[in-house]
Amino acid sequence: MRLRNLSRVLHLLADDGPLSRAEVAARTGLTRAAISSLVDELLRAGLVVESSRDRSGSVGRPGTALEPADRGPCGIGAEIGVDQLAVCAMDLRGGVRLRLDSPMTAGDTRPGRVLAALAELLEELVGRCEGLGLRPAGVTVAVPGLVARDSTTVVRAPNLGWEGVDPAPLLPTGHGPLRVENEANLGAVAERAASPAGTGRDLLYVSAGIGIGAAVLVDGELLRGARGFAGELGHVPVAPDGPPCRCGSTGCAETLAGEEAVLRAAGTDPGEGPRAPLLEAVRARCEGGDERALAAVERAGRALGVALSAAVNLLDPAEVVIGGPLARLGHRLLPALEHEVGLRTAVAGHDRPAPPLRLSRLGPDGPLLGAARTAVRGVLDDPGRARDT
Amino acid sequence: MRLRNLSRVLHLLADDGPLSRAEVAARTGLTRAAISSLVDELLRAGLVVESSRDRSGSVGRPGTALEPADRGPCGIGAEIGVDQLAVCAMDLRGGVRLRLDSPMTAGDTRPGRVLAALAELLEELVGRCEGLGLRPAGVTVAVPGLVARDSTTVVRAPNLGWEGVDPAPLLPTGHGPLRVENEANLGAVAERAASPAGTGRDLLYVSAGIGIGAAVLVDGELLRGARGFAGELGHVPVAPDGPPCRCGSTGCAETLAGEEAVLRAAGTDPGEGPRAPLLEAVRARCEGGDERALAAVERAGRALGVALSAAVNLLDPAEVVIGGPLARLGHRLLPALEHEVGLRTAVAGHDRPAPPLRLSRLGPDGPLLGAARTAVRGVLDDPGRARDT
Repeated sequence: MRLRNLSRVLHLLADDGPLSRAEVAARTGLTRAAISSLVDELLRAGLVVESSRDRSGSVGRPGTALEPADRGPCGIGAEIGVDQLAVCAMDLRGGVRLRLDSPMTAGDTRPGRVLAALAELLEELVGRCEGLGLRPAGVTVAVPGLVARDSTTVVRAPNLGWEGVDPAPLLPTGHGPLRVENEANLGAVAERAASPAGTGRDLLYVSAGIGIGAAVLVDGELLRGARGFAGELGHVPVAPDGPPCRCGSTGCAETLAGEEAVLRAAGTDPGEGPRAPLLEAVRARCEGGDERALAAVERAGRALGVALSAAVNLLDPAEVVIGGPLARLGHRLLPALEHEVGLRTAVAGHDRPAPPLRLSRLGPDGPLLGAARTAVRGVLDDPGRARDT
Repeated sequence: MRLRNLSRVLHLLADDGPLSRAEVAARTGLTRAAISSLVDELLRAGLVVESSRDRSGSVGRPGTALEPADRGPCGIGAEIGVDQLAVCAMDLRGGVRLRLDSPMTAGDTRPGRVLAALAELLEELVGRCEGLGLRPAGVTVAVPGLVARDSTTVVRAPNLGWEGVDPAPLLPTGHGPLRVENEANLGAVAERAASPAGTGRDLLYVSAGIGIGAAVLVDGELLRGARGFAGELGHVPVAPDGPPCRCGSTGCAETLAGEEAVLRAAGTDPGEGPRAPLLEAVRARCEGGDERALAAVERAGRALGVALSAAVNLLDPAEVVIGGPLARLGHRLLPALEHEVGLRTAVAGHDRPAPPLRLSRLGPDGPLLGAARTAVRGVLDDPGRARDT
């Protein structure tokens, strides 16, 4: 019970701090005496510090407000992309303190090679954390694939060519609990954290890139599905007799709206290198009125819009957020998405309109930030472990 | 706290009774003394009775086991269908004690007329309850349409021609809380109750008839959506350039797999009367090898299978259950459904197969039974009110 209350106080300060002891007591419903004792323990453990800031960020009376420490335990986020790796360290206040990126050599996504490179990048990050007084207390890895529920095993990541890969044994140990999670799920976690207070708890987050994944937040929690495979928006059939998909089906959303399909339709060879500059070029051609580029983006928007219509009909989210690399084409994509969803969701045209669509506030960084935030949340959930290590 | 414990004991006896006081204590973790006092209160209120049955149904020592009363408060379920009305009374043990059905005059589904007929049917049922020692303590009405979250207002029921209809003011009062709920949601509730212990908590329930609705249970709870509109399987686009739908879109699942589409494709005029005999005739023609009937059912199965593939990709349910009038064609539909879902769900062909599809254990009665069960659950949740009325 005491550990649970320590966690409640820590979460409150992380979400809404700096707060005075009196404010913490009022918001938790615990007595001033209980709060005093809990706060003393968090101060001694170095998880919380006295702050001279108040909530508005201005300087108040010193020693009256509390906030999470920006030294001590931190969360490590990592992202395995098809053409890049990234890692970052986030302190308990939610601030990103360090970030390292590493491009991957074109086309070689064999698990041993990717995970060795990631291990190296993680060790470098951990080494640099020390200089900032940060101590890794949990690592979460974002992967573009399906992760079996309550495990670290990547069941299938077609765009990496992985099946049944467990990264855990190949990554460094001793930095707290290791989690492996679908990138769209983590993007949704980050999007929620970046949403204004009281919003972002019921959303459909779309991570559109080479693959198209999605994550669903219901009342702030991820909808995972019985096997952990919920959110496979990219394999929603949008043209059942359409082109073959690498999954074995035909006419999946990915075959028409994925990064490769967009590039090819625009007359660009996707090649083996980084895609961001290629997508940027398509965007620039659209701005310049290039008809082939415009038609390619329009076709992708219609296909993704049909898949989103299925999702809105089934899930009725409060909002739909488009993230991932394809969000670079965002303002070009949105009109087609809005048209299809407006047309195809059952109550459109009535007094309760289709949910709003918008671009992610975090651009392509969502999954990495969500990974770090998930690791931080592990510390806030279990301050006893962070204190004792 | 005491009321919550009364509710816990009552739920336990309803789910797993008859049980002895010692078994109730063991399963709730409360002391024997506390259980004794709670049970005494439930006995005095007439909500629980001493039973001479044990769990296997055989006769044990009298007075040792407890179960919910089969007299006193009961739940009333009602169903508004396009061509029929039905009401039933369910006791706290989950037994249906009375049921009344009434066909509706063809085609006239104006709210005033339908609700007047339903009010009359409800009053007749309530009158007959008295003779069985039952006292209505809640009414739940199943409707084939969208119900705004936390309200009794039917936002849209296209197959009744209703928009923005609140049935509450036109139905009898004084029989406990009135709830109005989407029929598929209630079908899922009933399906869960009819599932073997430990199963049925994560399912996609499909109610296929004139409209095609669905409901999603996640960890035993209904997924409602931000506006209460989740589960609109019938408007998932399965052929985006296909036939126009009454919703304003094109190629919705309903346009190819709804009751009317199946009948027309089989060469049968759907007419204005009851559809059950017409569907029965199509089924019989299939059994006899009639090619047109077989092709009509096959086409519906493929279209519904594409929509289900979208749902399985997005939701990853543990099982998919087909209910509603079209389930009459069930064994003819299942092969096409299984083929499409097997082909189009991302991890098909791997070691974690697509979720199993099966027909509802309750046939077309699911929504009515789920409505009555929801009303009963209202009593179990709040035994204080039932005791005091």
